[in-house]
Amino acid sequence: MDTYSERIDLALEATELASKRMGGQIPGIHTETRSDEGVTITKIKVLDEEGSRAIGKMKGHYITIEVPGLRKKDSELQNKVATKLAKEFEQLLVDIRIEPTAKILVVGLGNWNVTPDALGPIVVENMMVTRHFFELMPNQVQEGYREVSAVAPGVLGITGIETSEIVQGIVEKSKPDVVIAIDALASMALDRVNTTIQIADTGIHPGSGIGNKRKGLNKETLGVPCIAIGVPTVVYASTIVNNSIQMAINHFKNQTENTEFIFGALDKMTDQERLNLVREVLNPMGHDLLVTPKEIDEFIEDIANIIANGLNASLHEAVDTDNVAAYTH
Amino acid sequence: MDTYSERIDLALEATELASKRMGGQIPGIHTETRSDEGVTITKIKVLDEEGSRAIGKMKGHYITIEVPGLRKKDSELQNKVATKLAKEFEQLLVDIRIEPTAKILVVGLGNWNVTPDALGPIVVENMMVTRHFFELMPNQVQEGYREVSAVAPGVLGITGIETSEIVQGIVEKSKPDVVIAIDALASMALDRVNTTIQIADTGIHPGSGIGNKRKGLNKETLGVPCIAIGVPTVVYASTIVNNSIQMAINHFKNQTENTEFIFGALDKMTDQERLNLVREVLNPMGHDLLVTPKEIDEFIEDIANIIANGLNASLHEAVDTDNVAAYTH
Amino acid sequence: MDTYSERIDLALEATELASKRMGGQIPGIHTETRSDEGVTITKIKVLDEEGSRAIGKMKGHYITIEVPGLRKKDSELQNKVATKLAKEFEQLLVDIRIEPTAKILVVGLGNWNVTPDALGPIVVENMMVTRHFFELMPNQVQEGYREVSAVAPGVLGITGIETSEIVQGIVEKSKPDVVIAIDALASMALDRVNTTIQIADTGIHPGSGIGNKRKGLNKETLGVPCIAIGVPTVVYASTIVNNSIQMAINHFKNQTENTEFIFGALDKMTDQERLNLVREVLNPMGHDLLVTPKEIDEFIEDIANIIANGLNASLHEAVDTDNVAAYTH
Amino acid sequence: MDTYSERIDLALEATELASKRMGGQIPGIHTETRSDEGVTITKIKVLDEEGSRAIGKMKGHYITIEVPGLRKKDSELQNKVATKLAKEFEQLLVDIRIEPTAKILVVGLGNWNVTPDALGPIVVENMMVTRHFFELMPNQVQEGYREVSAVAPGVLGITGIETSEIVQGIVEKSKPDVVIAIDALASMALDRVNTTIQIADTGIHPGSGIGNKRKGLNKETLGVPCIAIGVPTVVYASTIVNNSIQMAINHFKNQTENTEFIFGALDKMTDQERLNLVREVLNPMGHDLLVTPKEIDEFIEDIANIIANGLNASLHEAVDTDNVAAYTH
Repeated sequence: MDTYSERIDLALEATELASKRMGGQIPGIHTETRSDEGVTITKIKVLDEEGSRAIGKMKGHYITIEVPGLRKKDSELQNKVATKLAKEFEQLLVDIRIEPTAKILVVGLGNWNVTPDALGPIVVENMMVTRHFFELMPNQVQEGYREVSAVAPGVLGITGIETSEIVQGIVEKSKPDVVIAIDALASMALDRVNTTIQIADTGIHPGSGIGNKRKGLNKETLGVPCIAIGVPTVVYASTIVNNSIQMAINHFKNQTENTEFIFGALDKMTDQERLNLVREVLNPMGHDLLVTPKEIDEFIEDIANIIANGLNASLHEAVDTDNVAAYTH
Repeated sequence: MDTYSERIDLALEATELASKRMGGQIPGIHTETRSDEGVTITKIKVLDEEGSRAIGKMKGHYITIEVPGLRKKDSELQNKVATKLAKEFEQLLVDIRIEPTAKILVVGLGNWNVTPDALGPIVVENMMVTRHFFELMPNQVQEGYREVSAVAPGVLGITGIETSEIVQGIVEKSKPDVVIAIDALASMALDRVNTTIQIADTGIHPGSGIGNKRKGLNKETLGVPCIAIGVPTVVYASTIVNNSIQMAINHFKNQTENTEFIFGALDKMTDQERLNLVREVLNPMGHDLLVTPKEIDEFIEDIANIIANGLNASLHEAVDTDNVAAYTH
Repeated sequence: MDTYSERIDLALEATELASKRMGGQIPGIHTETRSDEGVTITKIKVLDEEGSRAIGKMKGHYITIEVPGLRKKDSELQNKVATKLAKEFEQLLVDIRIEPTAKILVVGLGNWNVTPDALGPIVVENMMVTRHFFELMPNQVQEGYREVSAVAPGVLGITGIETSEIVQGIVEKSKPDVVIAIDALASMALDRVNTTIQIADTGIHPGSGIGNKRKGLNKETLGVPCIAIGVPTVVYASTIVNNSIQMAINHFKNQTENTEFIFGALDKMTDQERLNLVREVLNPMGHDLLVTPKEIDEFIEDIANIIANGLNASLHEAVDTDNVAAYTH
Repeated sequence: MDTYSERIDLALEATELASKRMGGQIPGIHTETRSDEGVTITKIKVLDEEGSRAIGKMKGHYITIEVPGLRKKDSELQNKVATKLAKEFEQLLVDIRIEPTAKILVVGLGNWNVTPDALGPIVVENMMVTRHFFELMPNQVQEGYREVSAVAPGVLGITGIETSEIVQGIVEKSKPDVVIAIDALASMALDRVNTTIQIADTGIHPGSGIGNKRKGLNKETLGVPCIAIGVPTVVYASTIVNNSIQMAINHFKNQTENTEFIFGALDKMTDQERLNLVREVLNPMGHDLLVTPKEIDEFIEDIANIIANGLNASLHEAVDTDNVAAYTH
């Protein structure tokens, strides 16, 4: 992995940065935000090449669900988020013309043994898979279910095989109509870690995520549409530092004209210049680690359950979005 | 899985049964046993169709390593077994004409979350994989290593896809020359559980093992040779009962002519008749479970490490069979 | 641990054996059974010394909840059992005059790292503990909660200290009014493993359970009443064999007079004679292991949750027995 | 826990800060540093009240072992550090006049289920405990071993009881001569996380560590000497930011006189003023989390093994410091 890829995993963060840089409206980008009961849903449409270049993201739909309250263990809120995720996902399937009977393969990327990278495998474990019933006794499958399968292909360091190759092999044999790839991401902001879910119909492109997926998982590599669901679970120390300096400058801008007095040239630098400066300092000393909150074990379980519950409800008509939790453990 | 398949996973057990039934020598079967420092190695060659029918096993090589002492946590013995496994495996590769440069894919069958079925995935985690180095920087790989990759494809109940289909897909993409499949087996004897390792160059055939592999993993399904390494980790309650009655009868046969007095008609039954009787009694009452020793968590870790260490040493020339443990964790 | 203690952990099993031996009614023992929706609850009262000698159990109340259906993962049934457990436990507290405000210490016996012995520690993890709130902000604790604390003291092999000494030390410092000790037990019947819960107001006495508790946890050793909750999670191979022979004899008794023809002298032996014979055969060959069903990982999680949910509902008035699951994870 | 206690867990960090503030030599503090093969050992003696006030640490010995290379998985280096730890610990026992036969209780503080807080429980699991052999068969214990016991008392949120109360109860019952408390700490520098071990003969005082130990574990609370072994496993986001700004200022100080030009007033602030500023910004937005490196699962296993191996070698004469790893798993 190119450790310092300038890629930004969340389209929302990329759009915010571009908007700051370009002073507001970005051509080729359509954004829409709703907030309700502690849940903010932002839909970003990248309409054309111009928009794509502006934010460094492929043409397509990006849905971001932000729920700061997820940091406090609150099982009612978790159920609510699962329900909202289910509804957004169902709508997305309609919008991009995925048939209600389309066969789904859920791919849980990441490494079981590295807690902040275990999101994908945990979601896979909690998916309601049905493909084998359709294969073995097609006449006995009840109404309201569709063919769903799920795999956790592992990571390059453990398998020695590109993840995309493994998934391609499984897709060719099991012939799903759509792939849903679940992945842990890196965020630029510590407070988004484990509180934000991104759904993107563009799949996974080289360089994104916290694992190694150099060839990407998308329509080009897999031959079928790929929807990516990602949650930022880690952040670079350097981005924490950079964001904090930015926040500090903004904080004082509200109080005084003369932030230059306090922050010197830091105040005049662009975000990227400042980030480079911070990395120049941290990196040679081994200080620029990817970090995750201390409570990651519990966070990752909770958010994996939300995603599995939400997907189970949206993929199987027979599973009620009002009570998704009963179908998983 | 056909829960009461009459298949016997260990060739050694099948041969013992056939030998008892046929009174000694079995045509078409060649057997050779060596014991040394608490380790008994039995090599069974199934030479032809006649031998194959007699013991219900495919033509090929079956190497069984029995180490009753593995039940006592003894790290010196564990290292010794890993070394012996490495040597036997190397010799087998020579015997069946696998090139020293042949590319290997290790497939760890079974389920992470069911301790006695987690053997395969734990071995995969401890394999020294190198394929990605050969792919990414072929000129920089040191002498003495060969291309090894490793995957844990999961089980049908979690993936919804036949394991053999997943492995076929991965084989087609990653193109290994040989597959090594690691699997947990069922034994007919409680004392063989976690103390016996079987290596077979015939791959895995439908109905064997404790998971669901209905289509098998072998040269026919994969297109490349498949060597299976199995360890019995579970046993049916009914076989415990049946074996105990047999042992009791034998026990008293040494002391008295009149075992019929003690055991009645049980003494006259064939092994299979008695097993059927036991199942007839246990099964309807839900008593015929697959069971495993209480200490399974520790046993499975230990034997998975032995296998991974042994394989790493035999696959990579640069890894010394005298100190295999240093290369894994 | 005395591996072949003749102690029988379940009062229900001890009573059945005594009843068979004594031909029905046992003086000093009062038994009462109710079955409802797949759940059988048996209340055994050991009334006096005579009853105590007859079944080898202390004077007191023994409640056994048998739910064969627990073996099939059924979350509705699990909730039902938790609710029934809560009601039985509440009633027991009333019967033995434990005040509704009595302070409770839950002690989870057993070993984290040995799955069938991890019942106690998992229950502890899921208890709703409140003692620290009462200590730190006594005026702010809401109505409907009482003081509950919970510890998992570990096992002798890991701590080097008798578990009873550790618990005594904690009881002296934290001063609970009642101790509830959770423990994994050995059963005499494989089908009772993970499907049976025993509640006993007599605490834990030397020799019981699958771990090492040589000094017991009871009113004598702790100075406060001790209620034991136990679940059989393991069974000796020898008892599986012995029970199976007994079942086989019974099975054929229904069909023929002449079971002696089939079973020889086995038919005439007492249960204990036959068990001794089985052990004589199995033991020297290392065949008499404590075994557990293959699915133990999932079973132990499920039954630990049932117990924690049931206890949380019965100990805190504010927690509703109709929906106990919402309070734990 | 007072989340923003101004306490600094590592005496080394406290001394560095004080030294910077006071311009070099600190009265009442004696410091000595040795570096060898990638391992730096610093011994700080707090000699009197003046030294104690200067660095905010109790009178006593503080040994810090820094090994930046531990971040790269290197099992040879790990063994070397275990050996050095063993030697330092043995010497400390001599220096503070702990008899070679003194009975030891190892207390593993922290929470099994929160990876960066699981250091203590993992060390406990790997200790070679012997107390039960001395209790049960005192005449049969071999030469070269002493009485060692070990407990993991849990954390307040799970037990509802102050950890110090639990430990006091166990100390009163099991009567050790010395307590060794293992704990995860918070560091002020991300690069010290999981690469630094501190040994202190002053025990644990209120407010230190990442768990809740409000009453401390020390000679006053326990009645016997308490040696604390701690490893920083987490760091506040705010300290990462603050340290980075400080490093950036230092970085440029080497290149230019005019750091004020770049950093404005930040350059003139004291460390504490700047830290307060950073917290003022981060805290209200939920950005000031305790974070840990992404690879924490592996790090914590490795360093817990180093500590257990080192302690086993230093506590039991029969265990050789040259090959400590063989005695644990």
